[in-house]
Amino acid sequence: MTNKDEKYMQLALDLAASAKGNTNPNPLVGAVIVKNDIIVGTGLHRKAGEPHAEVHAFRMAGEHAKNATLYVTLEPCSHFGKTPPCANLVKESGVSRVVVAMQDPNPTVAGRGIQLLRDAGIAVEVGVLEQQARRLNERFIHNMLTKRPFVISKFAMTVDGKIATHTGHSKWVTGDAAREDVHHIRQEVDGILVGVGTVIADNPSLTTRLSEGHGKNPTRIIMDSLLRSPLDANVFNTEEAPTILVCSNEVSQEKVDSFTDKGLTVLPIEKNERGLNIDEMLARLYEHGITDILLEGGSKVNASFLQQGAIDKYVIYVAPKVLGGNLSLTPFAGDNPSFMNEAWDIEFASFDKIGEDLRIIAYPKQGEGN
Amino acid sequence: MTNKDEKYMQLALDLAASAKGNTNPNPLVGAVIVKNDIIVGTGLHRKAGEPHAEVHAFRMAGEHAKNATLYVTLEPCSHFGKTPPCANLVKESGVSRVVVAMQDPNPTVAGRGIQLLRDAGIAVEVGVLEQQARRLNERFIHNMLTKRPFVISKFAMTVDGKIATHTGHSKWVTGDAAREDVHHIRQEVDGILVGVGTVIADNPSLTTRLSEGHGKNPTRIIMDSLLRSPLDANVFNTEEAPTILVCSNEVSQEKVDSFTDKGLTVLPIEKNERGLNIDEMLARLYEHGITDILLEGGSKVNASFLQQGAIDKYVIYVAPKVLGGNLSLTPFAGDNPSFMNEAWDIEFASFDKIGEDLRIIAYPKQGEGN
Repeated sequence: MTNKDEKYMQLALDLAASAKGNTNPNPLVGAVIVKNDIIVGTGLHRKAGEPHAEVHAFRMAGEHAKNATLYVTLEPCSHFGKTPPCANLVKESGVSRVVVAMQDPNPTVAGRGIQLLRDAGIAVEVGVLEQQARRLNERFIHNMLTKRPFVISKFAMTVDGKIATHTGHSKWVTGDAAREDVHHIRQEVDGILVGVGTVIADNPSLTTRLSEGHGKNPTRIIMDSLLRSPLDANVFNTEEAPTILVCSNEVSQEKVDSFTDKGLTVLPIEKNERGLNIDEMLARLYEHGITDILLEGGSKVNASFLQQGAIDKYVIYVAPKVLGGNLSLTPFAGDNPSFMNEAWDIEFASFDKIGEDLRIIAYPKQGEGN
Repeated sequence: MTNKDEKYMQLALDLAASAKGNTNPNPLVGAVIVKNDIIVGTGLHRKAGEPHAEVHAFRMAGEHAKNATLYVTLEPCSHFGKTPPCANLVKESGVSRVVVAMQDPNPTVAGRGIQLLRDAGIAVEVGVLEQQARRLNERFIHNMLTKRPFVISKFAMTVDGKIATHTGHSKWVTGDAAREDVHHIRQEVDGILVGVGTVIADNPSLTTRLSEGHGKNPTRIIMDSLLRSPLDANVFNTEEAPTILVCSNEVSQEKVDSFTDKGLTVLPIEKNERGLNIDEMLARLYEHGITDILLEGGSKVNASFLQQGAIDKYVIYVAPKVLGGNLSLTPFAGDNPSFMNEAWDIEFASFDKIGEDLRIIAYPKQGEGN
């Protein structure tokens, strides 16, 4: 691996990322072909059903592909899908070297495309900017491996770790720019999840509001074990967006019917010793087409997800203010650990200033199993 | 102001900073003389009693100072102290332009040196990299203006805002590098302050431990209204460092004597509606030669300082872990505000990765009066 490899792979990743939101159910993929330090071909996968990134890049490169290097963000496919296998195309193109950011995440085909190229005498290097490539398609990879939605825990807190006062007042912790940033995330996800406590306390609409107008609304998912939500809550206005209620399977059918009669989807779920079984809930939501969820709290729902190991990513806004108060609300309530080493380890991925606020992006630490 | 002005002023600031810890009771000052884009003189104030920064720079520049530009991080002095006034020296040097980062912070002489230069026909520009210059001498400026120690609130928390479990267990929130960073700060301050709760729960020594060996120990200051501290606590081992106990002036003389008999200094302070009167305490500590204090908690002491507007700077370590628990301890307890806009506004100054942890440096927002 050279710095040049990273440079060209970065371009391929940037090309891939430019199609964000358009390739479902396919992953984002970018490709760059380089010969004698000149870029002779570029391509990206724009949309499911359209050609793969490599196809575009080879069309552009034409004869220049001979003895060139292909940079591609994902292992070239080795199977016939809607399009012929890219690995064959690569083989026939005449490139002498292929640099791949990551293997195919599908364990049943992983490595086959690479082997096919190596068998054809092409030098293949794997793992250049791999972490970036994995994060680019983090939802896709998670879906494929777990058949569960990718869960993003989002919260906004003061720099002393408070998300609301003891009365639940939280308008506003962060500034305009950070709140707009959240609405951009809402627009990108399939589902947004809150607990019944938030519905009762704040009566939010949970729709996407952007300064340039209304955005795409995710499905609203309300965790409400006992179906305590008021039937006239704003989240049940299904003209704006669909809503799924998740409750305990011990709730009476009559109670469930009062919500389904309003056109709402109700998912009864088993309870475990920690409350609703989050894993079962996520499996059911995935069957309903929810591939990612923005988890917007409050503290109890956040803690249920944390303690059942169901958070895949953190987006944390830290506001430049100190609230204080031993009864003020914090991002995660739930069980009270006795020792600091009972904490869940995470890894910081980035720190960015969004307006006056700090945004931290983090992931569960690898091998921590949450 | 040009980019070049900032470049040379930055160098002057770096020169000034290189004497950190050695100039007390004087401020850190650096100077650079530039002619035709060539640096002809550099200087810094190394130690009280030694020449000011300008003197060194002019000695080096000699005849090259004619028609040159002087960059200096602090307004040249206009009065006779241990050394003659620098403003006279500047006037006689033949420089045609002077760039000053900030006025003298002493309101009784501020602007006089600048006026003296302008009256002599020298072009003077004020305010280049002013914020950096103010922060370089933040303790000095605060001392001069308030006659109180500069108070740095330091805490280490998980990314969900917890400093300890509900049992008080906090070993360790952050990693080795962040803890070493704290010991470096301890070495730079005159005093380190904790509440009696911390003394009873952790029995800390509050000395400076660095990987390269023991460092300079600050005076330990224990806030203990009722003098509940055990007489055999580690902080009362005065062989390691001096200790000052701050208690209520309602505590019995007999109780006070039991501590003074051990060679400890006890400062009885009036109470106000929030507990010990922090401002009075700080005034007394300043009289005892304490010019800055590292405030190391716990939550109640932190909140006393916050709510009495006595924090001048924040150094916050955020660990990549999520603890959870609605009874876990947070950095600031104290009064429970009802509305989010009751929070104290701060300004983020920097975000740095220290080992695996994030360090945030922040200041009370200007005009907030805390």
